[in-house]
Amino acid sequence: MKILVGYRGTNVGKVLLELAVEHAKAFAGEIALITSLSGGDKTSREQIIEAEKNLEEAQRFLDKFGVKNETHLLVRGKNPGEDIVAFATENNCYEIIIGVKSRSKVGKILFGSTAQFVILKASCPVLSVK
Amino acid sequence: MKILVGYRGTNVGKVLLELAVEHAKAFAGEIALITSLSGGDKTSREQIIEAEKNLEEAQRFLDKFGVKNETHLLVRGKNPGEDIVAFATENNCYEIIIGVKSRSKVGKILFGSTAQFVILKASCPVLSVK
Repeated sequence: MKILVGYRGTNVGKVLLELAVEHAKAFAGEIALITSLSGGDKTSREQIIEAEKNLEEAQRFLDKFGVKNETHLLVRGKNPGEDIVAFATENNCYEIIIGVKSRSKVGKILFGSTAQFVILKASCPVLSVK
Repeated sequence: MKILVGYRGTNVGKVLLELAVEHAKAFAGEIALITSLSGGDKTSREQIIEAEKNLEEAQRFLDKFGVKNETHLLVRGKNPGEDIVAFATENNCYEIIIGVKSRSKVGKILFGSTAQFVILKASCPVLSVK
């Protein structure tokens, strides 16, 4: 039973990963940690290195709790919503866990467009975390 | 551990309640099944009787799976999103499960406004089901 976690690389040890651990344990599942970057002109080498580093750190966090996991840095020209939905379908995921909070330029809390896309398009239930 | 299920009375035996059963079992939790009606001029006696009947039917479904549950028909002048968020906070719910699919007049699948409100405002994670 695979649980996809959409990971933006800023939550190690925080709500998103802790919840993923709880769910993986409750459902005897394993975690697929996904970070998506557009690639091509839109993505710098530094962004890729940073994302890889963040995924490794998150993986150490999951390992500490004894949760079976895999990480994927997807750089294939899709936006994060498309990448997450496609991966979940291709891998027959049981559940997707995503953060929904985004902030506007003036600091207002918004409903992130990636989250909206994933919730409406995913082939499995989506757990949203703020 | 209480799991709130926002129930519109049209899903007995379907995805929403089945998922609620899975989660209640996985987390050794109990289910609070919530239906919200505005009340006052906006709600007819027939709607209330119908909602009560639907909740009883859903309760029989949950009982069949041996899941501890309670039902609440909230008629207190709030819209469903406000009722669900308030109940979850007041009862320190572990998780909210809601349906997100709504249809426009021309049949297009929309992101229901209740679901959007609950996902952004809830004090706990929200599991969305289509």
